[in-house]
Amino acid sequence: MSVLVSEVREGAYADSIVLMQLQSGLQRLDGVLSAGVVMGGAVNLELLRASDLLDAESQQARSDDLIIAIRAETDRQATAALSQVDALMKGRNTTETGDYRPRSLRSAARLKPNARWVSISIPGRFAHTVAHEALDLGCHVFLYSDNVALEDEAELKARAAAEGRLFLGPDCGSAIIGGIGFGFTNEVRPGPIGLVSASGTGLQTISSQIHQLGSGISHAIGTGGRDLSATIGGATAQQSLDLLDRDPATRVIVLTSKPPDRAVGARILAQAMNTTKPVVVHFTNSVIPASRLGNLHFARGLTETAETAVALSQTDSEPLSTTGEAEGRFLRGLFAGGTLALEAVQMAAPVLSPLHSNLGVGELAGLPDPTVSSGHTVLDLGADEYTMGRLHPMMDQRLRIERLEAEAADPQTGLILLDVVLGRGAHPDPAAELAPVLERIRSSQGPPVVALVVGTDEDPQDLASTTERLSAAGAKVHTEVSAGLEEAIRFCMPGTGPPRTPVQMEALQPPESAINVGLETLFEDLVSQKIDAVQVDWRPAAGGNERLMAILEKMKS
Amino acid sequence: MSVLVSEVREGAYADSIVLMQLQSGLQRLDGVLSAGVVMGGAVNLELLRASDLLDAESQQARSDDLIIAIRAETDRQATAALSQVDALMKGRNTTETGDYRPRSLRSAARLKPNARWVSISIPGRFAHTVAHEALDLGCHVFLYSDNVALEDEAELKARAAAEGRLFLGPDCGSAIIGGIGFGFTNEVRPGPIGLVSASGTGLQTISSQIHQLGSGISHAIGTGGRDLSATIGGATAQQSLDLLDRDPATRVIVLTSKPPDRAVGARILAQAMNTTKPVVVHFTNSVIPASRLGNLHFARGLTETAETAVALSQTDSEPLSTTGEAEGRFLRGLFAGGTLALEAVQMAAPVLSPLHSNLGVGELAGLPDPTVSSGHTVLDLGADEYTMGRLHPMMDQRLRIERLEAEAADPQTGLILLDVVLGRGAHPDPAAELAPVLERIRSSQGPPVVALVVGTDEDPQDLASTTERLSAAGAKVHTEVSAGLEEAIRFCMPGTGPPRTPVQMEALQPPESAINVGLETLFEDLVSQKIDAVQVDWRPAAGGNERLMAILEKMKS
Repeated sequence: MSVLVSEVREGAYADSIVLMQLQSGLQRLDGVLSAGVVMGGAVNLELLRASDLLDAESQQARSDDLIIAIRAETDRQATAALSQVDALMKGRNTTETGDYRPRSLRSAARLKPNARWVSISIPGRFAHTVAHEALDLGCHVFLYSDNVALEDEAELKARAAAEGRLFLGPDCGSAIIGGIGFGFTNEVRPGPIGLVSASGTGLQTISSQIHQLGSGISHAIGTGGRDLSATIGGATAQQSLDLLDRDPATRVIVLTSKPPDRAVGARILAQAMNTTKPVVVHFTNSVIPASRLGNLHFARGLTETAETAVALSQTDSEPLSTTGEAEGRFLRGLFAGGTLALEAVQMAAPVLSPLHSNLGVGELAGLPDPTVSSGHTVLDLGADEYTMGRLHPMMDQRLRIERLEAEAADPQTGLILLDVVLGRGAHPDPAAELAPVLERIRSSQGPPVVALVVGTDEDPQDLASTTERLSAAGAKVHTEVSAGLEEAIRFCMPGTGPPRTPVQMEALQPPESAINVGLETLFEDLVSQKIDAVQVDWRPAAGGNERLMAILEKMKS
Repeated sequence: MSVLVSEVREGAYADSIVLMQLQSGLQRLDGVLSAGVVMGGAVNLELLRASDLLDAESQQARSDDLIIAIRAETDRQATAALSQVDALMKGRNTTETGDYRPRSLRSAARLKPNARWVSISIPGRFAHTVAHEALDLGCHVFLYSDNVALEDEAELKARAAAEGRLFLGPDCGSAIIGGIGFGFTNEVRPGPIGLVSASGTGLQTISSQIHQLGSGISHAIGTGGRDLSATIGGATAQQSLDLLDRDPATRVIVLTSKPPDRAVGARILAQAMNTTKPVVVHFTNSVIPASRLGNLHFARGLTETAETAVALSQTDSEPLSTTGEAEGRFLRGLFAGGTLALEAVQMAAPVLSPLHSNLGVGELAGLPDPTVSSGHTVLDLGADEYTMGRLHPMMDQRLRIERLEAEAADPQTGLILLDVVLGRGAHPDPAAELAPVLERIRSSQGPPVVALVVGTDEDPQDLASTTERLSAAGAKVHTEVSAGLEEAIRFCMPGTGPPRTPVQMEALQPPESAINVGLETLFEDLVSQKIDAVQVDWRPAAGGNERLMAILEKMKS
């Protein structure tokens, strides 16, 4: 026989470490068979049920309620154990070394006036206020906490960007600044590769694999997992790319994230292309534009990311930097081949925004009027709406030539991209029809034209003569598809300047001192790295009871 | 001054080539300034308007109406030109050489009893009937026509598969069989690379680039653009992969398509993995699982596809073929690291189906109950629903160990995949907790466990001792993430047999004879390749008037 007792504390705050240690403490008490100390929520209730610790009262607990459940041999032992809870939790609040611990960030800063970094790992709903206090002190912030509201993150990052402070997080699991690790980090040797990562285990895996390959890390800047979302806009990634571009210790940059918002991803990749260094990009579970786009190298996984970065750090590669030539005007792709059009979309969609297409691809906007382009536009002129009752544009170029002339006359057009497919079945001499049009475009100072010629030297149309005549008429001709697409798309990518308030380079110096608010283990990790760190003995106002906190907040104002 | 006259012929059938030549013929007539001969539809009407050829009557034309518009100097000349239309169209119907032309497929087959291929390029709405006639003759079909209903395609392909006939199309722009080109093809030299392509210009671009690189093509089998859709299920790709696997001239296979349906793509990739040859895969604008998965090599673009195929054809690579080991049971991934979980999804989603995950990724199904796995399942145990009020699983392994035991006891589990992340901040010795559980799983004949260990030799947990203890407890341990993911996922991929009715190898012999129904240029291209071809002088019943056709159809039955 055994007895189950439980207590639910509404809206009670408790550090996760405290919960774990409280649970161990209860389990050691006399007669206690098992104990569970968890917050509410479906998974935790299921865990209690699986451990035969769930009673009717606990079942009613909400996700911000604290549940303490104890199974003991006798009723008396169960009740005795329950009465120990407060004592066990209080015991935790004294330091083991007996050092004085400040109760606020402000008094911690007076203790460590050289601290440039504040590490925060208290529960997310309290983190917003403390992060602002850290920025008040002029510090950079490592914000480990998750469950911070997206609008709070946007506000904090906008402030940090305006004040030139690095703001890593929220939900930033990992960062290495000048060799010093915040959060979860691996011991990796110093080296020439700098990381910007909107993903914690991504940062850990790539940096560990770089170390395993014999190379090393200059800095690994975690941005928080939502940095490349539409709301946040890549605020921290932008600061970090700029820092690593200026950092003399960094020769190769790695940029990694879960799938970014398309427009934000495009902006960050344009910035990456404007750095002076090779950048290896891995957006997990995203479409890859190409193996390479200028100085950007796109990897197919975490391991390939590390391998590519190490290989690039060992070669002298000439950085290419020629974005922004279209000066705010747009790419116009007029394709006869559907797959070539889709290949252009694959390469353009991650880096050009806004992009429209009639290909019906994912989230890409279509064209309300198929006869009028808008923004960057990639058209498959072999699609049904253009070929109903007429020959395919590979045979009959009339429609495409009219569109070519219309795009050339559009002042919004930055560059025109064409495919010219040779071979049996196709038009017997496409260059004869295209060349006079291209010459007219050139002589009227129209936009540049890139032509992808698909064919072989044995095709009936004569590949060499086709490319010669198109070149002579002013087109930039490519017979290698990816090189041609790359030239066209890079030409149309926007130029980007540095952040309005660049972060000073000293942000990347190894921190000598730091303030930790939250998880004790993170404090201990800083100390173990010889950082002159201080732990704030932080408690939420009103013990974390949200109703009382709201009343306190009202009394303040 | 000029005069515009027009005529709209309701529901009139006309070969696109005929339209183009009629237009040229009209423009050459006395006093004609310009002429337009198009089917109705928004784009065509816009074209007429841009050419100042659109009048009120034409504006009413529907998309299956034929519009003839003529602008001439005088009223008399315009009317005279309009009266020439029938004569100009009739002129086209006689052969230039005066040869006899059969009016039906059946009589064409009597003329060319050795013809094994029928090429069809009549308008899509008539193609279904003619394609069935071709199958009645026991022929393979190259169906160039587009606008064929999806259910008609499914029915035709199911019949062809059951009868062991290749069915390329509809909307198949290109194929090279034994060196003979159907549709749009380039002159490429014979060589060791065979293509299966659900994309016409994809096939042309890759084969041309292979030729430019100095290599060549054994066969290039176009399947039609919708072959890998959910409705069609990859019927033609399945036949084609099987043929190229058995074909001694093919050393490397290329498989390319626009984005496939996920389940169909998974099935085709499982079949590709069960071939004895390296397969280069390029699904344009799709997420790439990895650079490599067994014998599958995933390219980032058309050019890289060609380059990879040529490189593989020049090396002696040992084919790997170890799918199907999980025998219909499922992958269960239990991750502490969110990005590692997402990386597993990236690699698993294109090849394992059904796949569930709590990561909220694209079209992947979530889990109704987070405590129960279903099919292949990849879990991020660091997600909010698992960490509310508890420590991250990289620090507190209790939840994961319970789940590990539950998965091991589930008879549906084929393999368990874990990450073990070392470093500062993480659990001080995860192997100490995991090893006893792994040993219990092994001793109770549970499923195999693959562990991805992320860390370095300088991490506090001791990488070497961690991997040793996990290995000793029975796990297959990897410190290179992609290699570990690959082993786990390949183990769980289904084995696939050949198609129920394999196509005989003679289907890939160069056709000596062929029947063409539709575009005259496709017939001429066959003749120019020294094929003993015959052109069918095909006309739709009732001149293509759908109302009359329906009446005729009723009278037949």
